[in-house]
Amino acid sequence: MNAAIRAVVRTAIYHDIAVTGIYHGYQGMIDREFVDMNRRSVSSIIQKGGTILKSARCLDFKTKEGREKAYNNIKSQGIDALVAIGGDGTFTGAKIFSEEYDIPVMCIPGTIDNDLCGTDYTLGYDTANNTVIEAIDKIRDTASSHNRVFFVEVMGRDSGCIALSAGVGGGAEAILLPELNSGIDDLLDEIYLAESRNKTSMIVIIAEGDKNGGAYNVAKIVKEKIPHLDIKVSILGHLQRGGAPSSFDRILGTRMGYIAVNELLKGNSKATVGIRGNQMVTTPLEEALNTKELKLDDELLAIANIMNK
Amino acid sequence: MNAAIRAVVRTAIYHDIAVTGIYHGYQGMIDREFVDMNRRSVSSIIQKGGTILKSARCLDFKTKEGREKAYNNIKSQGIDALVAIGGDGTFTGAKIFSEEYDIPVMCIPGTIDNDLCGTDYTLGYDTANNTVIEAIDKIRDTASSHNRVFFVEVMGRDSGCIALSAGVGGGAEAILLPELNSGIDDLLDEIYLAESRNKTSMIVIIAEGDKNGGAYNVAKIVKEKIPHLDIKVSILGHLQRGGAPSSFDRILGTRMGYIAVNELLKGNSKATVGIRGNQMVTTPLEEALNTKELKLDDELLAIANIMNK
Amino acid sequence: MNAAIRAVVRTAIYHDIAVTGIYHGYQGMIDREFVDMNRRSVSSIIQKGGTILKSARCLDFKTKEGREKAYNNIKSQGIDALVAIGGDGTFTGAKIFSEEYDIPVMCIPGTIDNDLCGTDYTLGYDTANNTVIEAIDKIRDTASSHNRVFFVEVMGRDSGCIALSAGVGGGAEAILLPELNSGIDDLLDEIYLAESRNKTSMIVIIAEGDKNGGAYNVAKIVKEKIPHLDIKVSILGHLQRGGAPSSFDRILGTRMGYIAVNELLKGNSKATVGIRGNQMVTTPLEEALNTKELKLDDELLAIANIMNK
Amino acid sequence: MNAAIRAVVRTAIYHDIAVTGIYHGYQGMIDREFVDMNRRSVSSIIQKGGTILKSARCLDFKTKEGREKAYNNIKSQGIDALVAIGGDGTFTGAKIFSEEYDIPVMCIPGTIDNDLCGTDYTLGYDTANNTVIEAIDKIRDTASSHNRVFFVEVMGRDSGCIALSAGVGGGAEAILLPELNSGIDDLLDEIYLAESRNKTSMIVIIAEGDKNGGAYNVAKIVKEKIPHLDIKVSILGHLQRGGAPSSFDRILGTRMGYIAVNELLKGNSKATVGIRGNQMVTTPLEEALNTKELKLDDELLAIANIMNK
Repeated sequence: MNAAIRAVVRTAIYHDIAVTGIYHGYQGMIDREFVDMNRRSVSSIIQKGGTILKSARCLDFKTKEGREKAYNNIKSQGIDALVAIGGDGTFTGAKIFSEEYDIPVMCIPGTIDNDLCGTDYTLGYDTANNTVIEAIDKIRDTASSHNRVFFVEVMGRDSGCIALSAGVGGGAEAILLPELNSGIDDLLDEIYLAESRNKTSMIVIIAEGDKNGGAYNVAKIVKEKIPHLDIKVSILGHLQRGGAPSSFDRILGTRMGYIAVNELLKGNSKATVGIRGNQMVTTPLEEALNTKELKLDDELLAIANIMNK
Repeated sequence: MNAAIRAVVRTAIYHDIAVTGIYHGYQGMIDREFVDMNRRSVSSIIQKGGTILKSARCLDFKTKEGREKAYNNIKSQGIDALVAIGGDGTFTGAKIFSEEYDIPVMCIPGTIDNDLCGTDYTLGYDTANNTVIEAIDKIRDTASSHNRVFFVEVMGRDSGCIALSAGVGGGAEAILLPELNSGIDDLLDEIYLAESRNKTSMIVIIAEGDKNGGAYNVAKIVKEKIPHLDIKVSILGHLQRGGAPSSFDRILGTRMGYIAVNELLKGNSKATVGIRGNQMVTTPLEEALNTKELKLDDELLAIANIMNK
Repeated sequence: MNAAIRAVVRTAIYHDIAVTGIYHGYQGMIDREFVDMNRRSVSSIIQKGGTILKSARCLDFKTKEGREKAYNNIKSQGIDALVAIGGDGTFTGAKIFSEEYDIPVMCIPGTIDNDLCGTDYTLGYDTANNTVIEAIDKIRDTASSHNRVFFVEVMGRDSGCIALSAGVGGGAEAILLPELNSGIDDLLDEIYLAESRNKTSMIVIIAEGDKNGGAYNVAKIVKEKIPHLDIKVSILGHLQRGGAPSSFDRILGTRMGYIAVNELLKGNSKATVGIRGNQMVTTPLEEALNTKELKLDDELLAIANIMNK
Repeated sequence: MNAAIRAVVRTAIYHDIAVTGIYHGYQGMIDREFVDMNRRSVSSIIQKGGTILKSARCLDFKTKEGREKAYNNIKSQGIDALVAIGGDGTFTGAKIFSEEYDIPVMCIPGTIDNDLCGTDYTLGYDTANNTVIEAIDKIRDTASSHNRVFFVEVMGRDSGCIALSAGVGGGAEAILLPELNSGIDDLLDEIYLAESRNKTSMIVIIAEGDKNGGAYNVAKIVKEKIPHLDIKVSILGHLQRGGAPSSFDRILGTRMGYIAVNELLKGNSKATVGIRGNQMVTTPLEEALNTKELKLDDELLAIANIMNK
């Protein structure tokens, strides 16, 4: 996301627009955590993971008083428009705020879960995928005994995007996705199939939102059904959200920041930038928040199944 | 490219089609370097860099006799169709061979240069970009003295794609691209600009096909013009072609292999698979080889300039 | 460990000694999983994680019958001496076998836990440390909210070596080690201290052998005591055992393989190679197995405490 | 080196000693580039490559006037002792300064070249080795054609330490070291040998200080002698000096910083800390600078030769 921040700052400066950074998102608008940003503020941040402006949940922003305070603060700071980077919580806050106070807002979709409408890819998704497949590659190296099954739990909230991509990219033998609601039985079949093939070991990717309750739970159930299995569990956790951003995310973030400023200059507002195919587009926040888009790639699902036959 | 090989093999097997691997490309067709491939042949290759089937230039294939020998060999081997992975040399050979002998051929674009028509991205491009930005990140760490300029030469033959992407992703202060034919003067201006900003150091990306003759040459010319500069040169070389493939390349390769087989099954031939936006497409080899497509992304070029103002 | 295998093979070949590789350790001696090894068998393996000869637990080897079968097999295969790579299970088996049958054996200490006597460092330890600090670095990137504590569980069986090294290298705010038997109270104090310093977030490394029961357990207890904390847990798992070996491990493995063969040639047996300071040494298996060496580095412990004051 | 800075700061604070950081080394002492350092100044720097205090050559410090100015500056700043991190240039300056002005100085050996006396390992050496073997691994992936030779030039000034370590760790087929003064003939023999073995390709590591003049020069000479070779050259350059420090370097740097402060507290001065075997030691600067220690590891040299027979 730092690539996006850098692009916003430098594109704005190119158009002689002053930029104020706000720490801790909406909370920072309430607490007046402002910082002037110039060209130098964003030098050497494009390779940094995380975000230099930090982030935070903000309950106060959900109240009218909170938003009023925020508005007064940014007005007294001389801020005329906002670029908000985040997930659907950020989008929701931006939409409400921008309706209440008529301040132009452009959003940039930043979350590893890739579950936002209005874009094919969110910032952080490619980096997270690369982190997960590196972990899977390392686990694959240790596969040398028979009857060993590795359960790897990956992030995504209720989205199976990372699980599916990393599962295909890592050559996982089975993937448990929330969207598919597959029970343990399918997984047990996969395990029997792998054993019949005399496979040395097996890697199973479990999305954290999977309805069966997470890697430890599934491992427990599977162990009861097939006791001779040697089951190992990894819960990757927050390392999926950090690390130096990938090339794809840096380019995408840079494009998104650039487009966000240009769109604001064109008078666009209450929208999010996104990438559709190869085109940078904008989508009204209303639409982005209300559209129920099944983000799982059907073709990739079909491919995942074939790879394991 | 191993992801593509794996997908071809497993998709074919899914359709009860036998697969023969050919080592060393067209040379292997002439030298009878055949190997039966089954499900197990492609286990654990998706994370490997390079290609398990090796590759080679093949001059013999450019002759009628060479191709005749190749055809007889593959026919006696029982091969009915070909999937060829490579760059435009591979495409050209595939087109000619497939016209001469009426054997169905699907190509998969595999080269880091991203200069093939028919696809937005070639296999290996994303991985190479990630390798280059990792190198730039490390160089950036060492930037602590004034007046220091790092010249980093990257691959791409006559294409500036990697130079542009990695230049933006790495936050390079200047990028020399073959397509733009910029002379040294523009670069000297950038250097003066950076110095006036009291920048600690500066990273310049030079595409290997740049008309000014490569990083060492440019460094020499610049040193003569601005003698007080401390210039350091890195020629990244072939490490850009290796390494574990990125998540993006593994998914893309898997898709391409899957589509290639499906297209052959549908009777498609003399074409290359590719990705356009989000869609997997095929493009006749005739068109892919003859279309002069300027692959440099204008929007990214514009962004690169603004990032450095 | 592949570096060691490669060094054994090439050093033996240099002395005109034939080498037979045995898959799956002692189990492979019983099952006759032999493979001739020559110079080419070990090309391009030095960068591979895991071990090309696989590994396995072997219960049969613990029985006289199992060992007798193993001995007959290796004798009929023409094997005159053994190099066994592994942990204390491997050492124990080697010692017993070598006493029963008077066959020369040299061991090489290969385990990430670094808890073997006879050597300052075991093969795999440095690589595992690097893997863990990379994970900690990524988690550190995501630290932006207050009151957030990350619990990272690392391997080591009953050894806190990795936890201590990676804890210091990753700048962790607290480390729970089995050897110290620290209760949760010390950890709670650290958390209060970090909060008083207004630290954004905190990383706690927990060795898997810690007496408090693992990261999830500790997280539960801490959450009850300090409910406002936002606790995130990562269980790194087996990725710590894989991945391309580090430079240190490749050099160490190569030295160990080389010394193992030389020692056998000098008539040494029933011993393990090891590194003490800078010297390669050998230690009789008897001594290596019976000596209770507290492997935790007192100086590093003291340093870890000071870094967090 | 940031690990060392962090350890100096936190160890000093532990002993209630105030710390002033000086940017740009000795130049900063002359230009008064001082910064108060507290506990927070060194949070989150242990994973950063480079050094937060920057570095610079300083010609002025070689003059009496320059040193006088520096001394007055640090005295007025209230500085009573110095910790200087760097190579032999740093050591020399420290020794002279500390003799002239009787101010206690401890040095910490920080250079990737590993050519300083008084220590087995310098800070940055392990990280550089890991960077080089990653590059070699990637190049190895691309090796698929016959008759291809890759020349990789690595750093080290006049030291072949990195070339030897990375050459062994990367499985290079030949290594050119300054200390050995081997001519091109030995290299040509190695190439003929590899060809006779039908090796697909070959990696040659060339230390930058090698007397034959660098990778491009050697490549030229070899190409003239064996024209059918396809020679590719990589000059790794300054990426070897950057990147996140390895686990080994972080621990070593932390120890060195800790010891440096403790030694100053004990009244030690005009010395450098170092690691000998497993022990942290100090060596008088006089001795460290005047001892001609051949740093190449004879055992490793012997091993390198055997690995390639």
